[in-house]
Amino acid sequence: MIRVGVIGYGYWGPNLVRNFVECPDSDVVVVCDSNPARLALLQRRYPQVEVVQEVEALLQRADLDAVVIATPASTHFELAMRALKAGKHVLVEKPLTETSEQAQQLVAMARQQQRLLMVDHTFIFTPAVQRIKQLMDAGELGDAYYYDSVRVNLGLFQQDVNVIHDLAVHDFAILNYLFDAEFHTVSASGVSHVPGRAENMAFVTLYGKDRFIAHINVNWMAPVKVRRVMIGASRRMVVYDDIEATEKIRLYDAGVDLADEDPKQQAKLLYRMGDVLIPNLPAVEALAQMVSHFCRCIQDGQTPVTDGVFGQRVVTLLEGATQSMAAHGQPVTLRT
Amino acid sequence: MIRVGVIGYGYWGPNLVRNFVECPDSDVVVVCDSNPARLALLQRRYPQVEVVQEVEALLQRADLDAVVIATPASTHFELAMRALKAGKHVLVEKPLTETSEQAQQLVAMARQQQRLLMVDHTFIFTPAVQRIKQLMDAGELGDAYYYDSVRVNLGLFQQDVNVIHDLAVHDFAILNYLFDAEFHTVSASGVSHVPGRAENMAFVTLYGKDRFIAHINVNWMAPVKVRRVMIGASRRMVVYDDIEATEKIRLYDAGVDLADEDPKQQAKLLYRMGDVLIPNLPAVEALAQMVSHFCRCIQDGQTPVTDGVFGQRVVTLLEGATQSMAAHGQPVTLRT
Amino acid sequence: MIRVGVIGYGYWGPNLVRNFVECPDSDVVVVCDSNPARLALLQRRYPQVEVVQEVEALLQRADLDAVVIATPASTHFELAMRALKAGKHVLVEKPLTETSEQAQQLVAMARQQQRLLMVDHTFIFTPAVQRIKQLMDAGELGDAYYYDSVRVNLGLFQQDVNVIHDLAVHDFAILNYLFDAEFHTVSASGVSHVPGRAENMAFVTLYGKDRFIAHINVNWMAPVKVRRVMIGASRRMVVYDDIEATEKIRLYDAGVDLADEDPKQQAKLLYRMGDVLIPNLPAVEALAQMVSHFCRCIQDGQTPVTDGVFGQRVVTLLEGATQSMAAHGQPVTLRT
Amino acid sequence: MIRVGVIGYGYWGPNLVRNFVECPDSDVVVVCDSNPARLALLQRRYPQVEVVQEVEALLQRADLDAVVIATPASTHFELAMRALKAGKHVLVEKPLTETSEQAQQLVAMARQQQRLLMVDHTFIFTPAVQRIKQLMDAGELGDAYYYDSVRVNLGLFQQDVNVIHDLAVHDFAILNYLFDAEFHTVSASGVSHVPGRAENMAFVTLYGKDRFIAHINVNWMAPVKVRRVMIGASRRMVVYDDIEATEKIRLYDAGVDLADEDPKQQAKLLYRMGDVLIPNLPAVEALAQMVSHFCRCIQDGQTPVTDGVFGQRVVTLLEGATQSMAAHGQPVTLRT
Repeated sequence: MIRVGVIGYGYWGPNLVRNFVECPDSDVVVVCDSNPARLALLQRRYPQVEVVQEVEALLQRADLDAVVIATPASTHFELAMRALKAGKHVLVEKPLTETSEQAQQLVAMARQQQRLLMVDHTFIFTPAVQRIKQLMDAGELGDAYYYDSVRVNLGLFQQDVNVIHDLAVHDFAILNYLFDAEFHTVSASGVSHVPGRAENMAFVTLYGKDRFIAHINVNWMAPVKVRRVMIGASRRMVVYDDIEATEKIRLYDAGVDLADEDPKQQAKLLYRMGDVLIPNLPAVEALAQMVSHFCRCIQDGQTPVTDGVFGQRVVTLLEGATQSMAAHGQPVTLRT
Repeated sequence: MIRVGVIGYGYWGPNLVRNFVECPDSDVVVVCDSNPARLALLQRRYPQVEVVQEVEALLQRADLDAVVIATPASTHFELAMRALKAGKHVLVEKPLTETSEQAQQLVAMARQQQRLLMVDHTFIFTPAVQRIKQLMDAGELGDAYYYDSVRVNLGLFQQDVNVIHDLAVHDFAILNYLFDAEFHTVSASGVSHVPGRAENMAFVTLYGKDRFIAHINVNWMAPVKVRRVMIGASRRMVVYDDIEATEKIRLYDAGVDLADEDPKQQAKLLYRMGDVLIPNLPAVEALAQMVSHFCRCIQDGQTPVTDGVFGQRVVTLLEGATQSMAAHGQPVTLRT
Repeated sequence: MIRVGVIGYGYWGPNLVRNFVECPDSDVVVVCDSNPARLALLQRRYPQVEVVQEVEALLQRADLDAVVIATPASTHFELAMRALKAGKHVLVEKPLTETSEQAQQLVAMARQQQRLLMVDHTFIFTPAVQRIKQLMDAGELGDAYYYDSVRVNLGLFQQDVNVIHDLAVHDFAILNYLFDAEFHTVSASGVSHVPGRAENMAFVTLYGKDRFIAHINVNWMAPVKVRRVMIGASRRMVVYDDIEATEKIRLYDAGVDLADEDPKQQAKLLYRMGDVLIPNLPAVEALAQMVSHFCRCIQDGQTPVTDGVFGQRVVTLLEGATQSMAAHGQPVTLRT
Repeated sequence: MIRVGVIGYGYWGPNLVRNFVECPDSDVVVVCDSNPARLALLQRRYPQVEVVQEVEALLQRADLDAVVIATPASTHFELAMRALKAGKHVLVEKPLTETSEQAQQLVAMARQQQRLLMVDHTFIFTPAVQRIKQLMDAGELGDAYYYDSVRVNLGLFQQDVNVIHDLAVHDFAILNYLFDAEFHTVSASGVSHVPGRAENMAFVTLYGKDRFIAHINVNWMAPVKVRRVMIGASRRMVVYDDIEATEKIRLYDAGVDLADEDPKQQAKLLYRMGDVLIPNLPAVEALAQMVSHFCRCIQDGQTPVTDGVFGQRVVTLLEGATQSMAAHGQPVTLRT
């Protein structure tokens, strides 16, 4: 049984606590929040869980195996570092840190302490993304050509981070997971329509190996909600629409093939458009899968899918995209 | 009655001939094409129209008021220049020319010859774009914030031009028309997935005045056909979906407002989501409207909506976007 | 403060208890269920509520103003009758009773006891139905021509009642509410595909005054879930799609008009197709509205919208439709 | 080469002429229409085709193999009878005749004359219906449970026939083709909203063998156009949406299965919801397939799919449904 302490019971913390409580492999022992009203709410729901207001009171407990950090991104680095130094396994809300430099330090400390460091990139554990991954691994899609995502809606403008950190972060994680993508260059553009605020619209292009390209369109000021990803590949193409209640993935037997090349002239292209398949997906909660994965990795000594190195890559992309956006699309070289 | 000669009876020429034949203000006198098979096809359809194989034979005729050029883009400059010098009014297929320098020379020659120079940007004459223009002019949308277009499908890969020239050209024209847009910078990215071919996917960002931004996503290798534009503005927002048979425009009473500002803290945002209106659009053919507009402008001595200067601006954007795309998004300053 | 006792804590009872607990005008004093496990669940959630296993123990309490009955339909008549005789106001789950004869007796008893009798036809209190009612009352739709409903999905087959009782009952209530419909005849057809079970597919036609007609298609064995009602009328028509998350109502400025009549020949028809309006609907829970309405009617001595007479009409339609269905569509005259 | 004479060049005749002209197995020799303006139009299009105003002038020609009848339904019987007696093969627009008695006489005459009698039920030759037929014949759907069709739109009200003759006729033909349906009873309801006109809304239920049921909802006064058929079956279910441009058929791996029966209690039901498949359909014109089938059947001496007996069955259903509708759903026994 993994004994867990949770720091932060604000927006996302309650979801994490609920899932760790319901997970048969874990116990929530103590929750820390500086706001007494939040702790009172927690205690009405879970009278068995202890509460503390000071992080130190949580970290120094010897009876905890793991610490879960669900606080604002600006505090992740310090809290995760202290938890690792205290010898705890650590799960951090996304993004792992504010800078890739900080992420690297956490990865190094986790290695040194021989503790597990994992980031809560929940999307990776959705049935839709899992199914696409299976299709790719089985060769059903062939060679990947591109990833093209639109993730827009009306509100909520974040206070301190731009829309890339809020929405494109999901695509960066999915890209890492699906394509093991080694992007060498990023170009991003965007704008803020509210004086004094960070960018509320942004467009990011990532250049990968072998002509692979990814593009992400994120927007807090769209009249409709769209969550749609197209994946282009040589054998089959995918449209993944996360707004759909049940038909989230459509698999197209479509593509462009090169006809037998005539050396004297340009290759002729053949367009192929066949059946569409909508696979049935299991109805499971992604967050429960994530929590379960964290516990099993601790128990079995395995490396989590979204480990510190994974989280560091995402932070590197956030950093590069934000830097390019500030320079009107100026390409930025990524060191990954 | 405007007496018209048409150069080129390939892909688009037949549509132009049909509309000039049916327009009550014009007569098609002669058609030129180097391919006898095309001319034979024309004569079966319109026995009354003369045919010639040599451009010169058409241009030297004294009985023509106007010349319509529907040949590959690489020939536009030379043919339009000769027609203007011969004293004809000229209608050119989009894009006007290959370079903005050439476009400028045509504009100057048209002024000197006091002849009309117009570009066939058909989209401008669709009921949908016309309605959006009316809504903007009437102040129904308020201040424009952004234009975000997705224009993707499977095939047809063009032989000589990239996907920006084929598809984004429509958005460049619509942007010119709707927003009188003075864009100062462009950043574009893209890739070719077929060796030896031009880019088949591209993403273009245009930076305008007062935080206005435009983004265009074009792709010849998408599994589904999408033609969708979102227009963000302060009062109402628009979704324009050209795939829809009748419900092409949706008008959203939605937006983000700033609450009364408290000098001590950040402005608070209010999200507004109201009714949606789908206006009924007239069922008219855009190309017939374009042809009729060309004839009326000649008759009344008026400047066409899509005149040479308009066409030159579009060419400038094509040029800048292609240049930026070759440099991985490197921003390019536009001189418009 | 209305003091409430609830009989039945099975499928729907928990929703009623939750809403009566949250309603500022009511207190849930006691809940009765024959199953101790259900009562234990209730007590974990609401330690302040008393529990009893025998109905009599609830009905004889002098401190209750109202009794809410959420038990199987076959028990409604007896329980409601006892509660009314005990001098309580009564809210009954739909349908009110198994036979219209029983419904009539309850209505009479409620009058005699001067107590309120209301049926929980929740759909009447949805924002969508409320908005359609407002549009009709304001004359926005003109004269009503028809109501055409499709309400189909896969499962759940009910054990004891046919699909009309499960699904068409909602349409019967909506028809009563929107059109104050006095139907004179019903014809219904249907079939059971599972041996020994009641009909799982049914089609009901109701004939009203002045050529008004209603049709209802219900099915437990459809591959997709559909909840779609079309309302035809002289000025505007409505499509009400309850599956849509936010755009539940579409208002069409469409119809058929008679041109000026020429006495010598048949009237000419003019088809009108104009704008479509999608009104924004408030996000309120229908059941909370229903509970609040029940409490206010008791406090103010008003007649509820879905009173006993309303419930009786619905039962009359269920009875007639089931009778016609057993005779392959044989029309049945309705005495309402 | 089949030499064809066509009677009637009004609404549908031009489509038939065009397809017989383009069919490599047939020649259109002569066309008959009482209206000279229609004949003039034909001659501009097809100068090689002869024209006559009198039917007799066409029927007495010895150089015709087949006669195609595209006139109002009230004239079908007499014209087809004369053509058969003149020894011609005959293709008649749907419906074959006004009464099943007439249809029977035509079938008998065709047998006597050893000539082919076929009805133009075009829908049978669409790629969508063909594909569904293949799926059924291959056992992919299992046992058929029901056919449920909605076929509604705004206009055009027919002058002389009710909406069943205009729209449900397509479903009657499809039912005949797909299920070889032997329906024993029909119940129909409907109404006319325009004084002096036939019914513009109708609902038809057909009862078949083994619990198979069909339902058809047709309407000339709907605010939206719907053409949607659901087919319920034991293995897979189909949704056939004819409005969709390319994705007309969706194949659902969904259904209801009976669990192992426990003799002591009611059978338990298992709900199954799996993948959805959207087959790619060839882009062929149904009418061209129909014309080609007619010619091949003449050449090879085969019986057409939509022969006289087929057409007679459709007329029997039209007759029965109209009779039941006049009696408010009173069931009518079908003698087929």
